Parts: sequence; structure tokens; C-alpha cells
Amino acid sequence: MDILFLGTGAGVPGKMRNVTSIALKMLNERGAVWLIDCGEATQHQILHTTLKPRRIEKIFITHLHGDHIFGLPGLLGSRSFQGGTEPLTVYGPPGIRTFIETSLEVSQTHLQYPLFIEEIEEGIIFEDDGMFVTAGKLDHGIYSLGYRFAEKEKPGELLVDRLREDNIPPGPVYKKIKEGQPVVLSDGRIIDPGRYTNDPQPGKIVTVLGDTRQCEMAVQLASNADLLVHEATFNAENEKMARDYFHSTTKQAAETAMRAGAKALCLTHISSRYTREDERQLLKEAENVFQPVIIARDLLEVPVG
Amino acid sequence: MDILFLGTGAGVPGKMRNVTSIALKMLNERGAVWLIDCGEATQHQILHTTLKPRRIEKIFITHLHGDHIFGLPGLLGSRSFQGGTEPLTVYGPPGIRTFIETSLEVSQTHLQYPLFIEEIEEGIIFEDDGMFVTAGKLDHGIYSLGYRFAEKEKPGELLVDRLREDNIPPGPVYKKIKEGQPVVLSDGRIIDPGRYTNDPQPGKIVTVLGDTRQCEMAVQLASNADLLVHEATFNAENEKMARDYFHSTTKQAAETAMRAGAKALCLTHISSRYTREDERQLLKEAENVFQPVIIARDLLEVPVG
Repeated sequence: MDILFLGTGAGVPGKMRNVTSIALKMLNERGAVWLIDCGEATQHQILHTTLKPRRIEKIFITHLHGDHIFGLPGLLGSRSFQGGTEPLTVYGPPGIRTFIETSLEVSQTHLQYPLFIEEIEEGIIFEDDGMFVTAGKLDHGIYSLGYRFAEKEKPGELLVDRLREDNIPPGPVYKKIKEGQPVVLSDGRIIDPGRYTNDPQPGKIVTVLGDTRQCEMAVQLASNADLLVHEATFNAENEKMARDYFHSTTKQAAETAMRAGAKALCLTHISSRYTREDERQLLKEAENVFQPVIIARDLLEVPVG
Repeated sequence: MDILFLGTGAGVPGKMRNVTSIALKMLNERGAVWLIDCGEATQHQILHTTLKPRRIEKIFITHLHGDHIFGLPGLLGSRSFQGGTEPLTVYGPPGIRTFIETSLEVSQTHLQYPLFIEEIEEGIIFEDDGMFVTAGKLDHGIYSLGYRFAEKEKPGELLVDRLREDNIPPGPVYKKIKEGQPVVLSDGRIIDPGRYTNDPQPGKIVTVLGDTRQCEMAVQLASNADLLVHEATFNAENEKMARDYFHSTTKQAAETAMRAGAKALCLTHISSRYTREDERQLLKEAENVFQPVIIARDLLEVPVG
């Protein structure tokens, strides 16, 4: 899993940072990319990457502010125009369906793939063999969600050399042993699968929060995450402004990462008032509380864990 | 009046051409800018110009396809965020109101300026002391309009030296003379205003068409225009494809310009299948029929007349 930042700015696009979108790349794991948020010109940013819109399997919207959703209609349309035929699901707070359906209807955009829209609230959002996604309500002026993306535990690898040493011949039993099932061989031996597999590999966890003030739910969602992606609209000294506008400072984001026991922190949704030169100071403010910290930039790719 | 191309591509954004938007700059004439169409990331393109979103007074939408309207919600919101307080009017085919209002409502975008939305059909769209705007229905898969922007005739300038030579003292009479009214002076002289003013200056005309097949209305709208901005999605040999998709070729656009007696032609809405190298050929195809021709590029500025 890798995180690719498509837009890392706040509110309005600037020359340096586009409005919010984050890609969760799982090309090796599931041949797919998930997006979190889709601000205007997300499809334009994608032109500068190797991402293929047809690979986008799911889009998770944190909240309905324009800088997080106005790129959706264009991206959905272009994905179709460019030959995407696989289904796509958009998850988001109530209202997202009206926005998407109205935009596509008015513009007579006819998609060549099945589009599913799931209006969601807190709780379990999605689960399959590979992933488990939960969401929790944050503290923003509008209903805003944070998402926790947890890979399922991966079964330990089969120790083929040891199986051969013990004269256990290849066949369907190998699959059962890998899945951790006890097996009785034709010669009567009872096989303990644990002896022939590595320990299971824990899955990685990445937490991506929507816009929010510092809050308990953020800590819960980020608990033991390998990577926490947290907004930091303001620097440490603008705590009052952050509170007034329902946002967070660098320092508050770092405090949440520390309390959650996260393993790494990435700050995004940076106000355009801060220049490249200011970033060193933003970083320092967070690093005083928690390490390691990365300040996101558009098109930066960060491996999870 | 100047035309500034903000997006000159067709259908989906590419690295070379963004989707459609055209600015009609009238900063000297009325301290304002008008936009024709507003594809996604029009506000991003504006970041690379000297245009101020608060100067945008009117937006004319030709048709509701996504590549002509998906930039509207973001631009309207950012204009407010960046301190725009003057009223703004959007003109467009029926459906534009639902799209704008739904987008702003769902995203809880609260504009700090009065927004007027006028759903229009063919006819006179707007008139004031300076400008006269008419629209006509073109031939596209969706209801698509072309706009004719005509400056009003400008009154001739006052010949102050001649007034002084003839001992006509400055005062309110000067204003009357400039407006072409006959004046009786206090000494009894009757003044012919024509003797003291230059000839009136004819206004410039620019015609900007939405997506269309070759059609009679295009010729009418462009009649004697100083500049015709015409789509040319395809090259001359792809006439069948142009017809099938309700678009025009380079050659067809040039034929319309010639039949209309336009003074200059600008081709835009160029398919991304054509490279920079192909442009020479596109230009030649049009120039074989009509001259002068310009192939538009993003951020190109062209004076009208």
C-alpha cells in the first residue's frame, strides 16, 4: 500500500497545492486504487502520475465541502470516456448522491460502467478478504468523516522445504495447511499446520481523516496506525483560528498521532498562506511532539509502514 | 475587447489543453471580464493569468456538457472566498440552475455576493449602454447555443479645439453636443453638433459558438463579426466522425467564417488526438478556405478587431 497525494491544499486551489485528493494505491495487493476525496482538477493531477482512472475501484468522501468533491463529476465522466468498464463505488455522507446524480443528469453524462453510491454514516463501511474499512465522525462545521483502512492479516507462507523433508507430498493438502487447517494424511499422520507455515503477517493500517478539530474520534481511528494522514490547516500559533474554522494545527495533529500510538504522521490540507519556506517551521512544530512527520506535497508518494 | 483562451480542448482535459473556457476581457471598456463556458479547472487556469475572479461579471454557458460546466461550482465559490462582492449573472440553457444550486447547497457554499442565474433560450440575452448579446441555437446532440457579443456604437469624440476656435465656452452644452443634440447658445447661435464631433465609432463584434455541426445559425451569429471563435474538434478528413458526434471540422469552421463575412477566425475545442505538430496541418486546412485563422492554445490572448 502506498499513499499518493493528488492535492494537499486547503479551501481553494493554489499554484503550489491543489485542493484535496489522496490515492491509496494497492496495485500489488488488489490491482486497484482507492481515492479519498476528489477536489476539483483531481483528474488533471492524475495526468501527471501513472494512475489509470479505470483502476479506481472506490472513492471515499470525507465531507461535502466543495474542495473535497467538485472534481467528482469530471473524474467519473472521464473514467468512462477513457474506457473504464469495471464497477466503481463512491462512499460519502448523505447528500453525495444528489450531487453526483444531478451533475451527471444535467450534463447528460452516460457512464459505461456501473456506478454505486453509498451514503454512509459512522461504522463499518466495507469489508472483504483483503480490507476492512471503518469510519468515524470528526469535529468539523459540516458532517465530516475519518476513515481507517486496515489490511486483513495475511496467512503465513508455506514452508515447502520442511514439508518435503517430512515426506508430505504436494497436493491439495498444501492449500489446507496454508489456510491453517489440521490435515490427516493417507498414511494416518496428523499434521499440525502451524509447523509448516510462517507466522501470519499483520496487515498495514492507514488512517485518513477529513477536516477536523482535534477530537477523540481522530485518536480512535488512528490507533496503532502505520500511517496517519491528518489535516494541518494552520501552524501551531493559530490555534484559535483553527478552532474557529473547525480545523487543526500542526501541533494538534502531532498530539493526536502521539496519543493514538501511530507509527508515522503525514500532514496535509495546508493553507496557502504558508510558503515552501514556512514548511520547515510547520514540520518542526509537529516534530516537537511526535516523530516521524512528513509534510505532504502534491504528487508525493509515501509507502505505508 | 480581448479574447483570452482558458481552455481549448475537447471532452476531457489533457496535459496540453484544458477543457473549454474563454474569457472576454473588457477591462478598459467596462472594468469587467465575461466568461463563455467554465469547464473543470477553469479557476486553476485563471491562476496563471492576471484575471481577478471578482472582475467576472457574467458567465455565458453554451451547453450543459460536463467539459463546459464542471468548473462552475468551484469558480463561484472561490470568487466569494477571494473577496468578490459584486453581483454575478450566469446565463445558460435550462438545467444550469439545478446544477449550480444543487452543487452550492450540497457543499454548503455560502456566496458573499448576489448570484443571478438566467435560464435562456434563443434571442436577445442582454443589452445595456455598452453591449448587445444575442444567442442562437446550434446543431449539437444537446441544446447548444452560440453567442454574438456586439459592442454598441461609440459616440464620436468632442473636437474641443474647434469649439474654442468658434468661441463656444465649456459647460453643460459640451455634453449635449457630444450626445449629438442641437444646442442654442445664450447669444442666439444654433450649433450643429455634427461639426464638433468625430464620426461615431462602430462597435466590435465577437461571436463564440458552442459545440456544433456546420449550420445556418452559426453563419447568422457570425455575420460580419470581427472575430469568430468556432469549434474544430476534428481535422478536415474526419467529416463523417464530426457529423456522427455533432461536431465540426477545421474546414467546416472556415466555410462558416467565409459565408458569414467574418474578419478573422479562431479555432478551438481541438481533440487531444492532434499534437502540436498536427496544428500546422489543421491551420492549413482552414486557411485553404478562409484567412486569417488562428489555432487557439490555452492562455493565448487575441485582440478583437
